Amino acid sequence: MIFLSNDMRKTAEDFAKEQKQISISEFFEKNKHLLGFDNPTKALLMAVKEAVDNSIDASEEAGILPDVAVKVKSIGTDRYRVTVDDNGPGIVKEQVPKIFGKLLYGSKFHRLRQNRGQQGIGISAVLLYSQLTTGHPTRVWSKTGKNKKLYYSELFLNTEKNEPEVVKDEFQEDGKFNDHGTRVEMDLVGRYRKIQGIDDYLKQTSIANPFVKIKFQGPDNTRITFPRSVDSLPKQPKEMKLHPYGVEFGILQRLLGRTKAKTLQAFLTNEFSSVGNRSAKEICKVAKLKTGTKPKTMTRDEIDRLLGAMQEVKVQRPPLDCLSPIGTKEFEKSLKREYPDAEHICTITRDPAVYRGHPFQIEVGIVYGVGKQDRQAAIFRFANRVPLLYQAGACATTEAVRDVDWKRYGMQQPGNNLPVAPAIILIHMSSVWVPFVSESKEAIAPYPEIVKEMKLAIQDAGRKLSSYLSGKRRAGEQKRRLQIFERYAGEVADALSTLTEVKKKNIEKKLINLIEERIKIREEESAKEAAINDEETNVDGNKEESKKSEGENKKEK
Amino acid sequence: MIFLSNDMRKTAEDFAKEQKQISISEFFEKNKHLLGFDNPTKALLMAVKEAVDNSIDASEEAGILPDVAVKVKSIGTDRYRVTVDDNGPGIVKEQVPKIFGKLLYGSKFHRLRQNRGQQGIGISAVLLYSQLTTGHPTRVWSKTGKNKKLYYSELFLNTEKNEPEVVKDEFQEDGKFNDHGTRVEMDLVGRYRKIQGIDDYLKQTSIANPFVKIKFQGPDNTRITFPRSVDSLPKQPKEMKLHPYGVEFGILQRLLGRTKAKTLQAFLTNEFSSVGNRSAKEICKVAKLKTGTKPKTMTRDEIDRLLGAMQEVKVQRPPLDCLSPIGTKEFEKSLKREYPDAEHICTITRDPAVYRGHPFQIEVGIVYGVGKQDRQAAIFRFANRVPLLYQAGACATTEAVRDVDWKRYGMQQPGNNLPVAPAIILIHMSSVWVPFVSESKEAIAPYPEIVKEMKLAIQDAGRKLSSYLSGKRRAGEQKRRLQIFERYAGEVADALSTLTEVKKKNIEKKLINLIEERIKIREEESAKEAAINDEETNVDGNKEESKKSEGENKKEK
Repeated sequence: MIFLSNDMRKTAEDFAKEQKQISISEFFEKNKHLLGFDNPTKALLMAVKEAVDNSIDASEEAGILPDVAVKVKSIGTDRYRVTVDDNGPGIVKEQVPKIFGKLLYGSKFHRLRQNRGQQGIGISAVLLYSQLTTGHPTRVWSKTGKNKKLYYSELFLNTEKNEPEVVKDEFQEDGKFNDHGTRVEMDLVGRYRKIQGIDDYLKQTSIANPFVKIKFQGPDNTRITFPRSVDSLPKQPKEMKLHPYGVEFGILQRLLGRTKAKTLQAFLTNEFSSVGNRSAKEICKVAKLKTGTKPKTMTRDEIDRLLGAMQEVKVQRPPLDCLSPIGTKEFEKSLKREYPDAEHICTITRDPAVYRGHPFQIEVGIVYGVGKQDRQAAIFRFANRVPLLYQAGACATTEAVRDVDWKRYGMQQPGNNLPVAPAIILIHMSSVWVPFVSESKEAIAPYPEIVKEMKLAIQDAGRKLSSYLSGKRRAGEQKRRLQIFERYAGEVADALSTLTEVKKKNIEKKLINLIEERIKIREEESAKEAAINDEETNVDGNKEESKKSEGENKKEK
Repeated sequence: MIFLSNDMRKTAEDFAKEQKQISISEFFEKNKHLLGFDNPTKALLMAVKEAVDNSIDASEEAGILPDVAVKVKSIGTDRYRVTVDDNGPGIVKEQVPKIFGKLLYGSKFHRLRQNRGQQGIGISAVLLYSQLTTGHPTRVWSKTGKNKKLYYSELFLNTEKNEPEVVKDEFQEDGKFNDHGTRVEMDLVGRYRKIQGIDDYLKQTSIANPFVKIKFQGPDNTRITFPRSVDSLPKQPKEMKLHPYGVEFGILQRLLGRTKAKTLQAFLTNEFSSVGNRSAKEICKVAKLKTGTKPKTMTRDEIDRLLGAMQEVKVQRPPLDCLSPIGTKEFEKSLKREYPDAEHICTITRDPAVYRGHPFQIEVGIVYGVGKQDRQAAIFRFANRVPLLYQAGACATTEAVRDVDWKRYGMQQPGNNLPVAPAIILIHMSSVWVPFVSESKEAIAPYPEIVKEMKLAIQDAGRKLSSYLSGKRRAGEQKRRLQIFERYAGEVADALSTLTEVKKKNIEKKLINLIEERIKIREEESAKEAAINDEETNVDGNKEESKKSEGENKKEK
């Protein structure tokens, strides 16, 4: 062992003096790029995004058709004021400071149900960034009902404590405020960009949430309104219990310690989804445990056996009413409203699949005949109805699009790249828990099970598109053939007329009729063929694979 | 406004009941992929990595040449026991629980100094994963000096509170324990893989830390020792104060509120690096503030002007003794030890550069003549001497390697891809603060300033390599030329001998001498040319660009 001279040497006691707790807010203040605040353009978008997501989440859960108004105003060089207004349920006075001024606080983290937010970081991260870059407090107005007062407050976040600081609050005159709703106003250093910025984000939000009305006023005074394309809220997703395939040792141990159930069998049926008495008994049997075992007294070894049995015994898949997909028809309606000039639009909603006990569902839309012919198709990505605008390269959706053989569906695809076509490909993942690659929630982690389902969904949509395209191609070919015959029909008729002494005009007419009839028969034949091919691929490529996929999920655990 | 029926509607009061604080541990338990625990292979590597990083950090700071022993043992299907032993300063009893059993706790977050760790998340994240997957406590042994007792404890992390739980602790008999040091032992679900796994991680650690000795015993009973290649510790990096270019509004406001300085001038010279009295006066002048202004009484507007002035006034670059690069010679030594059969090795240490007030320094090594001829060169990435093994695609280093025109340095490069050559390219970034793309610290965020410096460093190394390669090529060509002459020398000599009646042997000898001499002159000439070319590119491509880069950094702010 080699030491430096004594005065250089630092002892364990010296180290001890330096050790210190780091608050989560200090951590994210320093690492704000993890929350999506890497640059001013993105920061401005994040502010709008987090506020709008919260507005729609709250309104939807309260059973209110959301009206959201977004305003971005320039207040100096690279400084903007973002104001988001909604007609949601409002927030009670006591909750306002914590929701906006504390990281990791919220209602969505602990429950298994599809939501836009899931971490309790979003809006408070914007507040953190706002005070870091401008020193201004965030202003919040809230009204929880027609006969309630309008509550106003100005907030900071104490980064050392990760606690809110209310610098001013009061009840105000209503003025023109909604009967109920929330308004948040934040100042921050940002940069405004039209393309791939707020405009695009709101447009895509409107596509994935056809029941929302969004008004936008930009710093350049552009005003856009995205109207509703459907007039009713989607079905409310329900909260689900944990599925036995989605549990880990530490979680199981904790649940056993906390349960009110007196027996293992009751524990299994009460605390988990898809476990009935029969499955519970089977699990106990495989784990070599009595159904009457007291949950709180189980040893580490017994828990280990229980965990093994829970993965092994076949149980029903988790309930699916915790999901809220856009819906095939609503999705199509929404796309038709947004792209009225598109040549063809098709949408697909897959059956839900399961990943580690968490149900998820993939939807795909393809808008054909927009954009330029020789460019890569645009990809719009969504997770729980929220558009994802950054980190496309790290996203499961991108991997799935690359994996598909687009030539099969009549599109070019140089190398293993994205398809080249005048099209937009939209992919939506609904889930009780989306595995994002970072806190900024910009890309879905490419777990194999998820990429696979996305690929199957894209293939479903690709087949729909391809029957349209091949129909179009057939029609085109037939027209060309007809034109060729027509071109020579005169000469042929001429020659025949000379030979048969029948009038040229009559021969020509008959000839053309004959050709048209032939072509019609051919057309019908090939349409039949195509339909049969499609069905076959459908069975092979979809239903079968889905089954396989579920089996694999099981094995994975 | 459209409501659902009353019984469906959820009010602000209903929401309030559901709001809840989320502990940082619960957050990361659910999002463990953010910490690098996406799959069992990576999880096992993370456990070794975090323990080894901590061992080296502590030993180095205590002035002890580190001896680290890593043992990975199989303890069941997909379950492993990881034990890491060091001869570091040990940890005092009171600190053991918090260091291992609390996320966001440590000594490195609040200081600006090069360290392996920086977030206070690493080792406690492993403990979290270990208890989640196996339910076993983490075992820690610590001895802080020859005459001190050996302290042993068994720990869990209470995820709801983010606080440690000591389930057992005692003083033990020393046995064969080091005079001082720490041992940590953790059980976890993992998978052992030799390639791109622990072996590679330790090998690369040894390369970037030539003063460390590492012993490894794998689950398959392989035993490897990576010896030291230098016998002294690197110079200790010093802690630096914040540089005026690296400050943001919120931070400045906080510093003003906390400072002991009574005047603005004193505040500026005391709290920031590179600000002397002259710069402080200049900043006050530009900000239109009196040098005697009391820091604690400054208004938001005054702080705003001060911030602007701090970015505007030209001050010295930050001190560089906060960095600890590997060093050109040490790096080369280390590579020669690890690749004794390599054909050529060159290393480069660039001058430090500055990114938003944070100094950083890039080093590059190229090992030539290892691996296969027609494969992509391997890239080894390091941040503060820690190897980065995952997420290469998202890393600044990869972007820099792609950006370089490798054909200039005699390597193939299909498209804009990585070079194809029998080579390893090593890139090391030292900094007081490395901007990682995620908490798992696997990739460096590709900020333009950082990518640019990396590119310049690679070009420096590329030129070194290319003079070697062109020398090799020249030697090859000359040898071929000589061989051609030699082949015909006999015949020419024969003919000349017939003509001149001089003995054939003499003529042949003279001919060959003549050729050899000519070639030698040519060789010297082209060597001179190459040297001149290199120098020119050096001045253009390096020094000039560095200056530009600093200027740009300034403007960026």
